[in-house]
Amino acid sequence: MRTKGLLIVVSGPSGAGKGTICKELLNRRDDINISVSATTREPRNGEKHGVNYFFLGRDEFESGIEKDAFLEHATVYNNLYGTPKDYVMEKVNAGEDVLLEIDIQGALQVKERYPEGVFIFILPPSYEELRKRIIGRGSETEESLKTRFSSAYDEIKLVNHYDYFIINDEVDKATDLMVSIIVAERNRVMGNVEEIMRTFKKEEKGC
Amino acid sequence: MRTKGLLIVVSGPSGAGKGTICKELLNRRDDINISVSATTREPRNGEKHGVNYFFLGRDEFESGIEKDAFLEHATVYNNLYGTPKDYVMEKVNAGEDVLLEIDIQGALQVKERYPEGVFIFILPPSYEELRKRIIGRGSETEESLKTRFSSAYDEIKLVNHYDYFIINDEVDKATDLMVSIIVAERNRVMGNVEEIMRTFKKEEKGC
Repeated sequence: MRTKGLLIVVSGPSGAGKGTICKELLNRRDDINISVSATTREPRNGEKHGVNYFFLGRDEFESGIEKDAFLEHATVYNNLYGTPKDYVMEKVNAGEDVLLEIDIQGALQVKERYPEGVFIFILPPSYEELRKRIIGRGSETEESLKTRFSSAYDEIKLVNHYDYFIINDEVDKATDLMVSIIVAERNRVMGNVEEIMRTFKKEEKGC
Repeated sequence: MRTKGLLIVVSGPSGAGKGTICKELLNRRDDINISVSATTREPRNGEKHGVNYFFLGRDEFESGIEKDAFLEHATVYNNLYGTPKDYVMEKVNAGEDVLLEIDIQGALQVKERYPEGVFIFILPPSYEELRKRIIGRGSETEESLKTRFSSAYDEIKLVNHYDYFIINDEVDKATDLMVSIIVAERNRVMGNVEEIMRTFKKEEKGC
């Protein structure tokens, strides 16, 4: 019935668990595509172009930015990362759903370019829990822990730019909820009226 | 987390099966209230005021209309029927979800008064199936069958005033979808930002 797929944008403060939920979602459903990012960093062992990333030269990436070829992009440790607009929109226009797991700043950039996306904000159950999770990773320095904690409030405030929130108390429940949101969004009237009216053409009126 | 409940308005062409889906939904979930209508018709055997209907005198009902006390109202066979606004809104404002199963004209009246509602349109899988279902009821005269069939197209066109559509192919699947829509709508950011920010107050920022 659907003509267009969904662009599902998932983000939230770091430590909220968006990565775990997205992984679980992709495990459960093979009808959802994960977006492949572009980057200027070197491929690591075993990484494949077009699978893990689109590996681009810096010139190529920068000319892409000028041509508005990215739904969002950012610089991380001197490397450029971005979401290729054509790659994502080709799938969406073909009726496929694409999942984009990105940070909040990236999500807001996507929203400017494609407000019809479904914007989902993952929240931790509490600051206490967020703290435990970030410390639990063990990969943070004392300094970066402080930065993360102190930015949590400012990040959570940005929830008002999103369509849905999910409190990630248990991964299974949070994933159930994500599935419900996707299933519901697939049944939105907006964007599907023409298709519905094609199914119920006037010719058949007399039935 | 939620401050306000949902007003879930379900309608669609007659024969699409909205009644069956709503019954199945209420069987499954005890966290959804069905709205009680007001009417000027006489109570039948065993019907209770405030349970089956609010039985009102004609004067009372008409003065209610003047005071805009109904979310929608209509005249059927010389009797007035309507949805009492206070009854519904008290529940919604207390955080409870209320289900309203009404015809399309009624739903459009509700939308004018409460556009924040969740408007769901039930569709048959095809005109052919719609026809079978209406004939299957056996309760229609030849004349009323013709009227129903010929109004189906005009009714289905009104889907564009709704938020969601559900194709009622199998009752169980259609009810699953209705549950997904309700669960998703409960997690909309709009209307819940204050509550979210209360959970994540700035005081805890340092955590």
